[in-house]
Amino acid sequence: MKVLISELKQKVVNSLQNSFTKDESECIANYLLWAEMSGINTQGLVKMTGKEPMQNIKPQHEIRVERDTKLSKLINAGAYPAPLVSQQATDAAIQKAKKNGFAIVGVHNTFSSNGAQAYYAEQIADNDLIGIVMSRSPGSTAPFDSIDPLFGTNPIGFAFPTNDAPLTFDMATSAMTFFGLIIAKSKGVNIPDNMAIDKDGNPTNDPGAAMSGALLPFDRGYKGSGIGMVVEIMAGPLVASAYCDSETFDKEWGSTFIAIDPNLLVDSKQFKIACSDIIAKIKSSRKKANIDEMRIPGERARAAHDNAEKSGYVEVDDAILHELGYN
Amino acid sequence: MKVLISELKQKVVNSLQNSFTKDESECIANYLLWAEMSGINTQGLVKMTGKEPMQNIKPQHEIRVERDTKLSKLINAGAYPAPLVSQQATDAAIQKAKKNGFAIVGVHNTFSSNGAQAYYAEQIADNDLIGIVMSRSPGSTAPFDSIDPLFGTNPIGFAFPTNDAPLTFDMATSAMTFFGLIIAKSKGVNIPDNMAIDKDGNPTNDPGAAMSGALLPFDRGYKGSGIGMVVEIMAGPLVASAYCDSETFDKEWGSTFIAIDPNLLVDSKQFKIACSDIIAKIKSSRKKANIDEMRIPGERARAAHDNAEKSGYVEVDDAILHELGYN
Repeated sequence: MKVLISELKQKVVNSLQNSFTKDESECIANYLLWAEMSGINTQGLVKMTGKEPMQNIKPQHEIRVERDTKLSKLINAGAYPAPLVSQQATDAAIQKAKKNGFAIVGVHNTFSSNGAQAYYAEQIADNDLIGIVMSRSPGSTAPFDSIDPLFGTNPIGFAFPTNDAPLTFDMATSAMTFFGLIIAKSKGVNIPDNMAIDKDGNPTNDPGAAMSGALLPFDRGYKGSGIGMVVEIMAGPLVASAYCDSETFDKEWGSTFIAIDPNLLVDSKQFKIACSDIIAKIKSSRKKANIDEMRIPGERARAAHDNAEKSGYVEVDDAILHELGYN
Repeated sequence: MKVLISELKQKVVNSLQNSFTKDESECIANYLLWAEMSGINTQGLVKMTGKEPMQNIKPQHEIRVERDTKLSKLINAGAYPAPLVSQQATDAAIQKAKKNGFAIVGVHNTFSSNGAQAYYAEQIADNDLIGIVMSRSPGSTAPFDSIDPLFGTNPIGFAFPTNDAPLTFDMATSAMTFFGLIIAKSKGVNIPDNMAIDKDGNPTNDPGAAMSGALLPFDRGYKGSGIGMVVEIMAGPLVASAYCDSETFDKEWGSTFIAIDPNLLVDSKQFKIACSDIIAKIKSSRKKANIDEMRIPGERARAAHDNAEKSGYVEVDDAILHELGYN
């Protein structure tokens, strides 16, 4: 059903205030609505439903800064929801990189994932910095040739400043997201072929069997597996998070926020002009016979978001609305 | 034919001294022999053969430092061969990151490519730093849904320090390397299905048609294309190199060398222990039914290199040996 965004936000904030302050609730709601408006509904309001909805999270302890240098910060999230702590990490990365040219901020011990990395990476790019954001999640994906879920779905996102909106690209390093499995299971539908294996390593279309088995790397090959491994390290042990571990589903998620000032190497204005030009070159390149229009990464999500913002309304799954108190 | 490595190196250095000083020739030879010994023969001595062999390169001008900060350096290679300038960039990245925690070094205007990114990334990891190295090459690969060769084969390599040899992963972001096409063409053999398209966007197995058409992204999808785009930017306009351009084949190759000290976030010793543990966890995980042994990325190349070093001999293609003056 299409609902008024302003009203939806109020209901989300009200619900989150069960567990969090008003400011914290606003911060989390901003992320959730952005994802929903962008059509990234596996990373949006669905996180307020199910067995462990975000509004019921009970943090373990206050958010603690465990390391702080000119170029870096390490944050123990105390099992606060990722969107809240990730916003603090993003703000810190922007501030440090604007001052010193580079920043890397690590977050560990969040409850659940960042969601869409693009949300944070774009904020970095909006400050004329290159943003790279990645998250390590509990083991759900098998390395190439293996049948054990050693790596998480391990998303990674990049955003580059341009003369217009940032050029943004984000992806899970698994063939599909874990929330995609949760949704398929709750709807009682099969997942497509060649996405996952069961616990004995046999191909499966059953989302439940995939959850106790493993997802495949996004390319079903060693390259995708290698990139998943890189994220497992960079957002795992590098940020004091767990790694290669499917036991700690309610904590020890890790995320890494990197900001790089292009001025370290070239003139930032020239860099932005070139990034805009790359968009133009992709958009105007010759397309495959069956393709209507060349799209750049992130284009569809941004268009959906901007349309929702303009209209004031967003389409949300009825079951989710019901849980949020809509009739 | 198997040849004595010491003798081979002498011949390579002698040949390179046509155009370069003895020190420069030694530096380039070290890379070429490493690649050959590692079995990465699309990135090894083949570069001393063909129409524009490395020993015949005539640089345009001296190597110039165009920007130099605590955290960064930009180098104009003056069309010197990449392995020489990339070694200088690697050394600079290591030195700056050891002192300040992070470094990014850009190189543009090299003649030809770095070759295997692992060579440089591993040297960074040997200094207890995380190494990330990538190169932008002339346009040869089509973005997803496009049939124009906007991106290069754009390799990226990562190396992580462990308690033993670094954990190294590198890959081309295209379905196969451009040197793979050159070799197939010179041997008059077809390339496998689903690697490339011709200039009109039709699938092709003809390496020549692929050279005037385009390679596909490594996963044949939007994720691989997106990662190729990230490298096109990070090793293109970010280092003052060309981008989305297939005209400048003899220059304007770009490379980026990143070094990150894990101590920015965590204890470096703990990080190395964790990376060693990740290797152990991958190696001991349950493997697919038809797999003999779980391998970690880079394992086969390192074993080949170490075996060659131990024996003193390396297998080299006869045609290459002939060009180097062997009978």
